[in-house]
Amino acid sequence: MKTPTAAILVVGNEVLSAKVRDENGPHAARVLRQRGVQLTAILTLPDRLDAIEEAVARERPRVDWLFTSGGVGPTHDDVTLLAIARALGRPLARHPVLVDSIRAWHGRLGSEPPEAALRMADVPEGTRLVGDPLHPVMVVENVVMLPGPPQFFRAQFDTFASALDAPPFHLACVYLSIGEPRFAQALDEVSRRYPEVEIGSYPRFDEADHRVRVTFECKDACLVQAALRSFLAALPEGAVVRCEGVSPG
Amino acid sequence: MKTPTAAILVVGNEVLSAKVRDENGPHAARVLRQRGVQLTAILTLPDRLDAIEEAVARERPRVDWLFTSGGVGPTHDDVTLLAIARALGRPLARHPVLVDSIRAWHGRLGSEPPEAALRMADVPEGTRLVGDPLHPVMVVENVVMLPGPPQFFRAQFDTFASALDAPPFHLACVYLSIGEPRFAQALDEVSRRYPEVEIGSYPRFDEADHRVRVTFECKDACLVQAALRSFLAALPEGAVVRCEGVSPG
Repeated sequence: MKTPTAAILVVGNEVLSAKVRDENGPHAARVLRQRGVQLTAILTLPDRLDAIEEAVARERPRVDWLFTSGGVGPTHDDVTLLAIARALGRPLARHPVLVDSIRAWHGRLGSEPPEAALRMADVPEGTRLVGDPLHPVMVVENVVMLPGPPQFFRAQFDTFASALDAPPFHLACVYLSIGEPRFAQALDEVSRRYPEVEIGSYPRFDEADHRVRVTFECKDACLVQAALRSFLAALPEGAVVRCEGVSPG
Repeated sequence: MKTPTAAILVVGNEVLSAKVRDENGPHAARVLRQRGVQLTAILTLPDRLDAIEEAVARERPRVDWLFTSGGVGPTHDDVTLLAIARALGRPLARHPVLVDSIRAWHGRLGSEPPEAALRMADVPEGTRLVGDPLHPVMVVENVVMLPGPPQFFRAQFDTFASALDAPPFHLACVYLSIGEPRFAQALDEVSRRYPEVEIGSYPRFDEADHRVRVTFECKDACLVQAALRSFLAALPEGAVVRCEGVSPG
């Protein structure tokens, strides 16, 4: 089974101008990893039609799922849905089910929704509503359009992601007392011998008990084990502080 | 004076696989904002030559400064410098000053640097070293190549950014007790009347004392003030919870 892939577009001037810190990208990264989905990019872009349209057109064909966060409200700076519609070559169309739920919501407040509220039902033509009918996830082709406020993003993202189960990644780690230059060549050889295994090397420069953590990851636990063993065999004596065997990562 | 612009490329499988949370993007966003620089994108990408090369080639011509974080060490997964070299159509060249400092560093440990360590001196041809000679910032054309570990990233980033002073942004905020649909049209009109002012609308859905915060930002404090006044005049009575006047933002 091919590993499913995803990318996330975080639309938000407020993140770029450091007014808030993005919570949605890290949340999505965590959940996708648990689900066995490979995240290939987190792109934080301004609330600008051209920037979003371009990124959607470029990234969408490369991944199984493109998630967007933010820009789906009723104000002038909410341009994500229009940008996606343009990137897909689809018009915006008012979705009757979304209109009904906006009307129902305003009805509870005893008022008719203003036109600005109804504009939130203008979505790329062909948008389907997935999951909980009261808080449906909007999906068009392989683009999943999620709201920016973290509590709504999480609820909808988790709903959608629960259907994405793929085999898990397996992870092994080695903690080393020697610096990267002393094992770089050995690691390079292991990485060439096991191209399916994703190998990372993360030095630290503080008072930790190790200088570098090396990670081995792959969906095939046997390959992770083999790459790990091959690396351990190439290390000088005393280099290993500790080793964490293969586990779901 | 034109507002200087910047983008940041965070290179890191470890961020995409949720092993660590990126600290460098948010730090850079904060500092650039304080310096009056407009950040136009934070792009988190994997340690993949093709992905980094493509992003550098695309983003670099659009901004005054493109910062990269990570991928400058001696292991097989450190491919940022080669990717930048390719994007700029420059070969890698071993930089004599960097070689000297790698030799000096290993000399203090009483050893000759291994070839893997010297490879860290292989930088895009034409790279200049800026700031503190012991921890120089590597710059080629308008690409600033910074290390991934946050303490080094911050030290070098702050050094470089200290030379970027531009006039500050000015910010005003209004906190509202009414929902977005009730003022969206008024805000839309203000945004069309004051295109130079960046206007954001941020709803919340918790127990806060307000339902929406609206922000007005621009380098011209008078325009911020004018846009704010124009919006306040269009609001229904009782809508304003409080208002924060123009201040450096």
